[in-house]
Amino acid sequence: MSDVLASHRAFYDAVETGDLELMESLWADAPSTTCVHPGAEPLIGTDAVLRSWVLLMANVDYIQFFLTDVAVSVLPGTPRGPEGTGEGDVAVVTCTENILSGEGTESADSFSGGKAVCTSVLVRAGADEPWRFWSRHASPVLEAVDVVEEDEAP
Amino acid sequence: MSDVLASHRAFYDAVETGDLELMESLWADAPSTTCVHPGAEPLIGTDAVLRSWVLLMANVDYIQFFLTDVAVSVLPGTPRGPEGTGEGDVAVVTCTENILSGEGTESADSFSGGKAVCTSVLVRAGADEPWRFWSRHASPVLEAVDVVEEDEAP
Repeated sequence: MSDVLASHRAFYDAVETGDLELMESLWADAPSTTCVHPGAEPLIGTDAVLRSWVLLMANVDYIQFFLTDVAVSVLPGTPRGPEGTGEGDVAVVTCTENILSGEGTESADSFSGGKAVCTSVLVRAGADEPWRFWSRHASPVLEAVDVVEEDEAP
Repeated sequence: MSDVLASHRAFYDAVETGDLELMESLWADAPSTTCVHPGAEPLIGTDAVLRSWVLLMANVDYIQFFLTDVAVSVLPGTPRGPEGTGEGDVAVVTCTENILSGEGTESADSFSGGKAVCTSVLVRAGADEPWRFWSRHASPVLEAVDVVEEDEAP
């Protein structure tokens, strides 16, 4: 569990620090890798996915993720290899991303906030291998709007 | 591959026909099951997920899904069990859902359209077992807006 969460957190560290090498090391290298950015259509394949992150990281001066409601699960019933560790080799992590971003850090006015929810699928090839992202889907959270009571209208 | 897509399509059949029994049979029964509806926060656990579908199906008179860009992948590097089939036991399916829904079918005016993208993770316990949903994340697609040129303003 902690290994999964370390890779999951490292992903956000990579975005925050603009560390492309770290970002690359965190994705499975496969034509089947998928990534959905908030409001966007799916990207398929590690090359397309990494290109999108390079672009995103190049266009953001400052970004910080505060993660809440992080839930991690390893696959029930995954067939273990003969040397299986019993910990599983596929994991799904869901979380809420509370995002603070801005252009420049001179004044508080230049910051804006946002909220997204994300489902990530991480895999590893074996017990001694690192967990890597195979799929990631993030989407905006639409805040519930209070219905205005109109009883008091004239 | 075809088995995965059959379960994936059956899910939409269940929603379209309001078939709760079919819907229940298509989800892994586990506390780690996750589902994100468009714009919503994650639901965790099969009970919570199925409750949300019961509610959704009870509140829709008519709904039909036209799926496009369906891409399915089985896990590269999943450890196979001693009797592994070589086909893998975890799959990720992404697709675009073109949704037609309405209240009553009397007039064309009562219909509305929508578009979402979805990433689904399906699993099966063994080669002879059916594929079931373990995770599902759907989100609205924000259409690109053309920037209006203001050169012609007075």
